[in-house]
Amino acid sequence: MSHISHLTSHISEKNEVTVHPPATVANVVCGFDILGFALESPSDKMLLRKAKGKGVKIINKDNYNLPADPEKNVIGKALLALLDAVDENIGFEVESTKLIKPGSGIGSSAASASGAVVGANYLLDNRFTNEQLVEFAMCGEEVASGSKHADNIAPCIYGGFTLIRSLHPLDIVTIPSPELYATVLHPQIEVKTSDSRSILKQQVRLKDAITQWGNVAGLVAGFMKSDYNLISRSLVDVIVEPVRSILIPGFDEIKKKSMDAGALGGGISGAGPSMFMLSKDEATAKAVEQAMKEVYKKTGIDFHTHVSPISSKGVKIAT
Amino acid sequence: MSHISHLTSHISEKNEVTVHPPATVANVVCGFDILGFALESPSDKMLLRKAKGKGVKIINKDNYNLPADPEKNVIGKALLALLDAVDENIGFEVESTKLIKPGSGIGSSAASASGAVVGANYLLDNRFTNEQLVEFAMCGEEVASGSKHADNIAPCIYGGFTLIRSLHPLDIVTIPSPELYATVLHPQIEVKTSDSRSILKQQVRLKDAITQWGNVAGLVAGFMKSDYNLISRSLVDVIVEPVRSILIPGFDEIKKKSMDAGALGGGISGAGPSMFMLSKDEATAKAVEQAMKEVYKKTGIDFHTHVSPISSKGVKIAT
Repeated sequence: MSHISHLTSHISEKNEVTVHPPATVANVVCGFDILGFALESPSDKMLLRKAKGKGVKIINKDNYNLPADPEKNVIGKALLALLDAVDENIGFEVESTKLIKPGSGIGSSAASASGAVVGANYLLDNRFTNEQLVEFAMCGEEVASGSKHADNIAPCIYGGFTLIRSLHPLDIVTIPSPELYATVLHPQIEVKTSDSRSILKQQVRLKDAITQWGNVAGLVAGFMKSDYNLISRSLVDVIVEPVRSILIPGFDEIKKKSMDAGALGGGISGAGPSMFMLSKDEATAKAVEQAMKEVYKKTGIDFHTHVSPISSKGVKIAT
Repeated sequence: MSHISHLTSHISEKNEVTVHPPATVANVVCGFDILGFALESPSDKMLLRKAKGKGVKIINKDNYNLPADPEKNVIGKALLALLDAVDENIGFEVESTKLIKPGSGIGSSAASASGAVVGANYLLDNRFTNEQLVEFAMCGEEVASGSKHADNIAPCIYGGFTLIRSLHPLDIVTIPSPELYATVLHPQIEVKTSDSRSILKQQVRLKDAITQWGNVAGLVAGFMKSDYNLISRSLVDVIVEPVRSILIPGFDEIKKKSMDAGALGGGISGAGPSMFMLSKDEATAKAVEQAMKEVYKKTGIDFHTHVSPISSKGVKIAT
């Protein structure tokens, strides 16, 4: 038996896998609609099993009352899209335990979609590219948000910071970065993505757009040069944040106190309501968390916080 | 005599220097108003001599009829700004030979201003930082263009690709890049910067702005990853070029034929009328030049072309 055929027969025996798709932050300050990153935690837990016959069975093992019908479920739709590209007569059974709260603005649905396709791909001997997986996962994301977007899926699958240079055609670019920690504040309020969208002005001043793309260029250069000061100076959004931040109670004070505590910068995560701040080490990220808690305790609004390194890996496969 | 005092006494003997400030390209496609680069050639030639007593004397050694009055001359104003920051009672005499044609859109005035301050700084034992030199040179640029801008001065002084992340406060970031060659076409027509400015729309669609900053991010990442394909995909301007290119006869055909000849991409240099295309090697850059010539010969408009590597150095000091 050759080494290769031995490997093949070994791989084909994979019938079950557990994956941990992480939370992600999209719309990274000046990088609105193009830049996202993956956290290490929180992450969902998902067990996938190969099943006979095309189709997907979803078993929700949490209390979020997500639909079990695969056509109405993020995981289901993503896997059905993937199965469309598979010749064999196989399907998947999925036990999903969501730990990333839906509607939090840190990519809960993207985690479901991404974890599903990465897990399935593992069971199919990794026959699909990351780019193909993003396309499949976007079909799942569509169920949750009404549109196919890759803002959270790209970092969830690729890990680290990802640039979506173009959605049609899909062009995802990974952006190397130095060690960074994120502090996330999740106020327990609902901000509808549709409201977040409709509040945006469809026209912006050229002057502001130039400021924004100068900051985007500075941010990418800052990441790739590991220049924390440049990252900090570039984490400025003159277009979306001034409009959207009014939807998030205490935004300005959270930001100010976080910067005072040493954060490099930050803003709204995705379409909100979560906020995030980046710091260069864990101690600072925890000091930022403390500052956020102090501000938010005064508001009377329930909230969660998370502190996590930016993860250079996306979906983790438990082996 | 210590080593240091020996060095000092040696340096203080520098009374004369010849500098070669290169042509530069500003408004690099999607990087409108923020991104520029330095060519290796053409470059001006400028001889600076220390003189007694504050003040600047300009001797123009070319036929461009530039004013000799330092208050009305780019070199003069830049040096007067620099001398304002010098305690000693000294001045400069400058012999300027311009080889970069004024009004060409490849940073002729910036070369004069940058060469002057870099040369003067050399004669003053390099006491000023590059950032300070940019500030002085901007006072010279103001004479030529009516506004203090650093679009061409930054690459002329720093070399390579430069990002002006912010003008107030000044924040210049050098962007490493792989080997690249530029082909420049200079049609002998006048495009007034004021016309180029006034034709721009002051409001742009958010959608287009997002496309633009995705391309800017891709371009910076492409340079820093030495990824020629990514550079090429990112060299797209959806905001300024569609409006301004109508001022440049044959723009679309030049661009198409240049791409057919293997160029990575390109666009309008500065506010025009020059166009530039980037290529990954000299042979391609020369093929692009040939394609440009074939298109322009048909127009009946006189033109010059230049092929040059992107220079990682800015102003060169002849020693």
